[in-house]
Amino acid sequence: MTRAVVTEADIDEIALGAAVLGTGGGGDPHVGSLMAKRLIRLHGPVALRAVDELTDDDFVVPIGGIGSPSVSVERIQAESELLGALDAIERAVGRTPTALMPIEVGGGNSMIPIAAAALAGLPVVDGDAMGRAFPEAQMVTFHLAGYGPGTTVLVDHHGNEVVSRPVDGAWSERLARAVTVEMGGGATMIDYAYGGAVVRECAIPGTLTLAKRIGRVLRGHGSDGRALRDDERIAALCADLDAVRLFDGKVSDLQRAVEGGFTRGAAELDGVGTDRGSSFRLDFQNEMLLGRRDGILAAVTPDLIAVLDLATGVPITTESLRYGARVAVVGIPCDEKWRTEMGLKTAGPSHFGYDAEWVPIEHLAARREGEVAR
Amino acid sequence: MTRAVVTEADIDEIALGAAVLGTGGGGDPHVGSLMAKRLIRLHGPVALRAVDELTDDDFVVPIGGIGSPSVSVERIQAESELLGALDAIERAVGRTPTALMPIEVGGGNSMIPIAAAALAGLPVVDGDAMGRAFPEAQMVTFHLAGYGPGTTVLVDHHGNEVVSRPVDGAWSERLARAVTVEMGGGATMIDYAYGGAVVRECAIPGTLTLAKRIGRVLRGHGSDGRALRDDERIAALCADLDAVRLFDGKVSDLQRAVEGGFTRGAAELDGVGTDRGSSFRLDFQNEMLLGRRDGILAAVTPDLIAVLDLATGVPITTESLRYGARVAVVGIPCDEKWRTEMGLKTAGPSHFGYDAEWVPIEHLAARREGEVAR
Repeated sequence: MTRAVVTEADIDEIALGAAVLGTGGGGDPHVGSLMAKRLIRLHGPVALRAVDELTDDDFVVPIGGIGSPSVSVERIQAESELLGALDAIERAVGRTPTALMPIEVGGGNSMIPIAAAALAGLPVVDGDAMGRAFPEAQMVTFHLAGYGPGTTVLVDHHGNEVVSRPVDGAWSERLARAVTVEMGGGATMIDYAYGGAVVRECAIPGTLTLAKRIGRVLRGHGSDGRALRDDERIAALCADLDAVRLFDGKVSDLQRAVEGGFTRGAAELDGVGTDRGSSFRLDFQNEMLLGRRDGILAAVTPDLIAVLDLATGVPITTESLRYGARVAVVGIPCDEKWRTEMGLKTAGPSHFGYDAEWVPIEHLAARREGEVAR
Repeated sequence: MTRAVVTEADIDEIALGAAVLGTGGGGDPHVGSLMAKRLIRLHGPVALRAVDELTDDDFVVPIGGIGSPSVSVERIQAESELLGALDAIERAVGRTPTALMPIEVGGGNSMIPIAAAALAGLPVVDGDAMGRAFPEAQMVTFHLAGYGPGTTVLVDHHGNEVVSRPVDGAWSERLARAVTVEMGGGATMIDYAYGGAVVRECAIPGTLTLAKRIGRVLRGHGSDGRALRDDERIAALCADLDAVRLFDGKVSDLQRAVEGGFTRGAAELDGVGTDRGSSFRLDFQNEMLLGRRDGILAAVTPDLIAVLDLATGVPITTESLRYGARVAVVGIPCDEKWRTEMGLKTAGPSHFGYDAEWVPIEHLAARREGEVAR
């Protein structure tokens, strides 16, 4: 992305990379990509603003979908929802948005702000507040830095509009989730809308560009310009991201339910190839959050766990995971902001009720290598 | 209430009458009355505005509690909640309230606007949008006349503020109920805030004055100035309101649960006195909604069903109903606005899922008299 615009041609690559960073959640990127492409075709390319280009006069509005990914694949957000949400935040706060931003780069929520930016004639910020996807509204870098959700907006396809001023991020999540369930399990949300200075302080920069780079690798464009064979892509991706290939396996068991506005469940994998004879368990709540190899912790939130199609490298969401699918599980180190005490308290394993302590994915990998070598 | 003010001395009588009109629901009037008395003591009497005195320049704000009465007896609304809600509606709509109004005269929701009016230095309107209490937010005369909820406000004691623009009354109820449950089962709500012209068209006039008249009778002040003995009060009340004494009995069975933000259940009564040998069943959802005598329909929503202490005439809420209590069940004809097709569709028995057709309480009483005479 050397030009500072997002064109229709960029969308599929960004969406593909965003699906990897979405670790199975963040809404369906395919549905969002269709919307973004259509709106760029209609209204022209979207200007891309680097995080460090934001000025104090900017009013940056993160916009995306909230709810269960299982609902988001069934229902495309309407243009009227996006414009309604932008109109509501402007009315409620009395400031006109100057740029939109993904609240999470992962999954479809990378696409919604691009689509909305095309529609509203605004730039989109090359950054986000997670560097991945997370299932709850307070799991954002703004929260880690002590900023509240501010004025939040929820709009649904019926035309209902709910503007809240929750006292903190946890209350924002609680109220928004209850309203979203009532709205039918999915809604358009704006929260953590802040001036340019706060966004410069808090946002994880360059994540749309990162998503595009990941997408390009998975489409066979090596970082050295060389074309990659299908079976080279996952390895190239791991090299590019300092990621760990945790497991190759076949889905042998799958529990999944939509409850409380989330897609929750677990998948069991039987090893294939060099992992034959081992098993791997994945736990998810919208996103993949915990991976255990033969009962031993292999990766855990806030580090990223991506599930990719073994043959093509295409990422698989928690919603589209199917019995019998052959997949590679890849662990990616999360942004340093999540590796703090506040980061781990907010999105570490204990928050989700998992009986595991966070260990950096690279340490877990080194541990295992040590054991395998012994 | 010849003086057009509400004084501290009026509150207990209004609260008592409001509890009758509350038909068991509308929030606990005792808790609300303590708050209203305290705030009148601090800030002075509250001016009372007749509905037909409202001008087109007025912005009339109905304010009250939403949630399960079982929660409202445990938790007094904070003054900050009331002021926060008024501040939120002013910010969201851009109009300064000129008068407050009970959304329902029944129960504690008669007291909240008086308390808030004392606090804010505003008059309170002598009227409401139900002429009683109802459990759901769209069950108001504004809705019957085709007016939507407008901008609605929910505020809780944590300091959370939720401002919605629901597309209609049913959506307002749905969204508000979900938020209220999340807020802990009780919140301060503003909805159907309208200009004076709409309120003149829709409100049921004189209901605070009516509540006071009922309260005076139950405290032994006959309408002819004569003091009433305890055992004359219920009869005097029935004569004053064209009400029907449906049953005298003792609570022999009681099911009651707080679910989905409501207090729901049923009570069985065994007849005493002239009703010995008969039984009576009361069904409630916050309010008493359906009464059956020996399995035969005796009274049904939207007509009012009040349960009074047999000895003292003091009304009993669905929350305070106890096994063994000796009570009189009184049926009161509802306002004509509820006896329309739209009124019955909105708050008639089929809306609540009761297998009964609405028949005016006076017809049901005449039918029974005919049968008893035969």
